[in-house]
Amino acid sequence: MKVAFQGEPGAYSEQAVFNYFGDVETVPPESFDAMFDSVVAGKSDMALAPIENSLAGSIHQNYDLLLRHDLHIVGEYLLRVRHCLIANLGVKKEDITKAISHPQALGQCAAYLRSHGIKAEQVYDTAGSVNMLKESGARDVAAIASKRAAELYGMQILEEGIEDNAENYTRFLAVGRESTVPKEEAKTSIVFTLKNQPGALFKALSVFALRDLDLTKIESRPLQGKPWEYLFYIDFIGSMYDDVSKRALDHLGEYAVMLRVLGSYPRFRG
Amino acid sequence: MKVAFQGEPGAYSEQAVFNYFGDVETVPPESFDAMFDSVVAGKSDMALAPIENSLAGSIHQNYDLLLRHDLHIVGEYLLRVRHCLIANLGVKKEDITKAISHPQALGQCAAYLRSHGIKAEQVYDTAGSVNMLKESGARDVAAIASKRAAELYGMQILEEGIEDNAENYTRFLAVGRESTVPKEEAKTSIVFTLKNQPGALFKALSVFALRDLDLTKIESRPLQGKPWEYLFYIDFIGSMYDDVSKRALDHLGEYAVMLRVLGSYPRFRG
Repeated sequence: MKVAFQGEPGAYSEQAVFNYFGDVETVPPESFDAMFDSVVAGKSDMALAPIENSLAGSIHQNYDLLLRHDLHIVGEYLLRVRHCLIANLGVKKEDITKAISHPQALGQCAAYLRSHGIKAEQVYDTAGSVNMLKESGARDVAAIASKRAAELYGMQILEEGIEDNAENYTRFLAVGRESTVPKEEAKTSIVFTLKNQPGALFKALSVFALRDLDLTKIESRPLQGKPWEYLFYIDFIGSMYDDVSKRALDHLGEYAVMLRVLGSYPRFRG
Repeated sequence: MKVAFQGEPGAYSEQAVFNYFGDVETVPPESFDAMFDSVVAGKSDMALAPIENSLAGSIHQNYDLLLRHDLHIVGEYLLRVRHCLIANLGVKKEDITKAISHPQALGQCAAYLRSHGIKAEQVYDTAGSVNMLKESGARDVAAIASKRAAELYGMQILEEGIEDNAENYTRFLAVGRESTVPKEEAKTSIVFTLKNQPGALFKALSVFALRDLDLTKIESRPLQGKPWEYLFYIDFIGSMYDDVSKRALDHLGEYAVMLRVLGSYPRFRG
């Protein structure tokens, strides 16, 4: 099996692929767009797309890509993000004056860097910063990336778990060309639009509340070309193949201008 | 009056300040954080913070900053974003092989750039890209920024309105130290958290739906340190000083774990 992820070898997304799928072949497209295209074109069997970080919030681009492509969500995975301070071999922690990494990783270690008097400099991605650091040979610079990135490039980990907030998780969605019928407790992801009128969202949520279906996520996105009208993304506990969820979706169809089920999939159990 | 905006002279935010406030003194802090701090410390009387773009979605950082600071929303403004292709004097459009700008501006002109065979390169901000281009003197590079940025740096506009989608608006919020009582039709912005239980959001929305109060925006944000619990931001038509809205907010208080009114302010009329 071939699984696409966005980023370089050693990226957190690559770690998530191995944790979730086991020992598979990986395909690393350059962008989220190319990652989805790779599955559509059959160059990959699946993609593992980051959709939400517990600190930074949703990765909206992947929500938009889910909507634009005729693919199905078949699974979810939660990765605990642990940032490492990585340096060239023999470098000591007190030599470090600058850290390079992706802006989000730098932001998540801001207090750590400040308290150690280390300046932050943005680069394209986390694993790439390790590669850059190795090539430069710099001895006063550290990269912030995953343990796997340090190992992959044969670099030294000065400290592990330097993120300011330990509750740092990224949720990934496994996306494929075929839908699956989940056997375990399931989640379903949907996207819909509503008429722009008072109470519209309240009515839409009633189809879940009246059936005691638990929402785990709601997200609104502006509709391209229609300023201040919104797309809604909802995740709820249930499978589109069970009766109650089916009726809730039928009921929602009465109010929605557009409704698409992106997939029902086993709920992640850590 | 002194008004803080984030960005360099010539930024779209600066244009919004002059359109909304008229001829005021501007204070340009480097970051959104510094912009809010500037108002808190009394270095500025107001800040004008971009909160949402009709294509790109919400600027989450400013939602978080509204929550972290004890300031009040006192107004809103909608800016139509028109991107210009800007070059050094005497350069012709057919000479351009590369465009530099903020990633969001590049993204909003992606189809235009592709159809003209122009490569995109990311830089820190739109107005800054014009300054960089002027200093470099490059004759095969264009910057993408506002008309005002071109005029400010004495540069040439090769084409105006190169954005792929004309429905490109940015909504700004005027933020000050004192709340105001709006006299015209008002909007109110609130933020709240709920117990993590089925139907919680449905109940919360009922306080508006049962009183025919129209929501214009709903946004969810992860709660820092509590993975998969959410803050909700809602805008509705009404003023916290009118009876119906007051009752709705009291009613919401019965369900909410935390509830804060960020401000009531005149609704923008273009």
